[in-house]
Amino acid sequence: MIKTRFTEMFGVDAPITCGGMTRVGKAELIAAVANAGALGFLTALTPGSPEKLEAEIKKTREMTNKTFGINLTILPTINPVPYDEYRQVIIESGIKAVETAGNNPAPHLPAFKAAGVKVIHKCVTARHAVKAESIGVDCVSIDGFECAGHPGEEDIGGMVLFPVTTARLKIPVIASGGIADARGLVAALALGCEGVNMGTRFMATVEAPIHQKVKEALVSNDERATDIIFRTMHNSARVARNAISQQVVEIERKGGAKFEDIKDLVAGTRGGVVYDSGDTDYGIWSAGQTQGLIHDIPTSKDLVAHIMREAESIIRTRLDKLVA
Amino acid sequence: MIKTRFTEMFGVDAPITCGGMTRVGKAELIAAVANAGALGFLTALTPGSPEKLEAEIKKTREMTNKTFGINLTILPTINPVPYDEYRQVIIESGIKAVETAGNNPAPHLPAFKAAGVKVIHKCVTARHAVKAESIGVDCVSIDGFECAGHPGEEDIGGMVLFPVTTARLKIPVIASGGIADARGLVAALALGCEGVNMGTRFMATVEAPIHQKVKEALVSNDERATDIIFRTMHNSARVARNAISQQVVEIERKGGAKFEDIKDLVAGTRGGVVYDSGDTDYGIWSAGQTQGLIHDIPTSKDLVAHIMREAESIIRTRLDKLVA
Repeated sequence: MIKTRFTEMFGVDAPITCGGMTRVGKAELIAAVANAGALGFLTALTPGSPEKLEAEIKKTREMTNKTFGINLTILPTINPVPYDEYRQVIIESGIKAVETAGNNPAPHLPAFKAAGVKVIHKCVTARHAVKAESIGVDCVSIDGFECAGHPGEEDIGGMVLFPVTTARLKIPVIASGGIADARGLVAALALGCEGVNMGTRFMATVEAPIHQKVKEALVSNDERATDIIFRTMHNSARVARNAISQQVVEIERKGGAKFEDIKDLVAGTRGGVVYDSGDTDYGIWSAGQTQGLIHDIPTSKDLVAHIMREAESIIRTRLDKLVA
Repeated sequence: MIKTRFTEMFGVDAPITCGGMTRVGKAELIAAVANAGALGFLTALTPGSPEKLEAEIKKTREMTNKTFGINLTILPTINPVPYDEYRQVIIESGIKAVETAGNNPAPHLPAFKAAGVKVIHKCVTARHAVKAESIGVDCVSIDGFECAGHPGEEDIGGMVLFPVTTARLKIPVIASGGIADARGLVAALALGCEGVNMGTRFMATVEAPIHQKVKEALVSNDERATDIIFRTMHNSARVARNAISQQVVEIERKGGAKFEDIKDLVAGTRGGVVYDSGDTDYGIWSAGQTQGLIHDIPTSKDLVAHIMREAESIIRTRLDKLVA
């Protein structure tokens, strides 16, 4: 057992989260993560409506009686999203852990606090983490350059971003990006974090509700098989490298792409259509540099158990014995 | 004391190197690093000739009786460099540690081996590290995305690059890039490395033979104050961000700069002229993302002693106590 301020705060066994992943963070995976002793987050917007989220929460509860949370990603959208209704569903369902992302969560904090919901806010810069602490979130998840999805525009590697952030915050910090095993967990703890988030690693588990071919691609790809796209639009996304991502990179490299220039390329492929089809060569899909550290497709339970055993061994055997 | 396969191999107290830094790795700094118990490397080419390197080695020996090494950076150059003569000086001076970089060190290995010189080869990719081991180097120093100078073109953060590399090698691996304190050292040890290299951190020490204003800039800059330049020429370099580096970035962003397009901008400023002048706003000079972790200008001795004390404390106090 490794106990940290994070495990104490959320009442879970392992200092590991499976943060919100659009179209991936569904009942099957999140219940499995919970049963493994880690803290998984259903993505609120994936089911499609507040009512459907309520149903997804019920479905998850049928598969586990352990703690799980909800990811609420707040983004500017063309069609307004009923965030208040989602928040209401979360609170009324008795959920006690929420991961916010995308935008300032301040408008939602009073209601969550009143309901005893602990909030982890996901950030990509140290100054946003400081801001998040100042407005009263309970925990920060900080995403380094290595991460899948949106690493931001500042490109600070986890080796630097994690200790810079933990040095500036009093609340617990979760290291995100670049972590897929016990070595990364112990490194993050050494850098002052209280736990780690794993996205790409949990995609390559038995229970992840995505096509087997995507999981196999995560295993066969190495750490180099990602691209950062949409940088010219200041909306950088790290995705698995394939012919489509390379075409987008090339269009952007030639100078200042507008969304119009690439929308046909990515139309119908964003948001994880690949996760259903398994056609990893065709569409844009998220994957982090941790692909280089993923060599199998275990159950979530075996994965978490293995990481926790190994992490204790790294601390008790390797590190302790180096100290003469 | 932290003993690793690296400290055993080189007979030094601390698992820390101060790898070759052009125009910075001179007698004053390298002797101070040696006296602090770490392994510093004079840069062979900085003095200007094999004879001058011999004199620099003698000068360093007058300041320390501890182990230090020589960095031999092998680059294609317009004017041929007498590498064999440099190698001869190294061997005849009785130096027992060499850091090679830039190109395949194979032509130099038989002579070094015959003379009992241990070779650390500096790489920026896992496959080059595997290759280096296969040709018989004794140790690899692997440079992650966060590093100052030349991170290569693949942009793999240390959190991933370090464990990917250590998993594939039997010889000791030194983590380089993103490390400036005890937290980074313990993280690197957890990721399977046997030590760390620090460049930017040693630049901000009392003994570094560079202008005080450069040291002060390293302290005042945060982790974001770097740029990667020369990417369009496939010769990426991470440098301190200033008006000149931003101009180069902008020229490259506008599409496929040739060296001709930017040579006037960087003429007379590359190679560390800033280190002498202290005019950090004017020229191009190397600095890593660790600027965000550097808050003081200690002596090398105090720096190394502090890191080693803290590292033991992180292992014995923080990590051990997390294991319930």
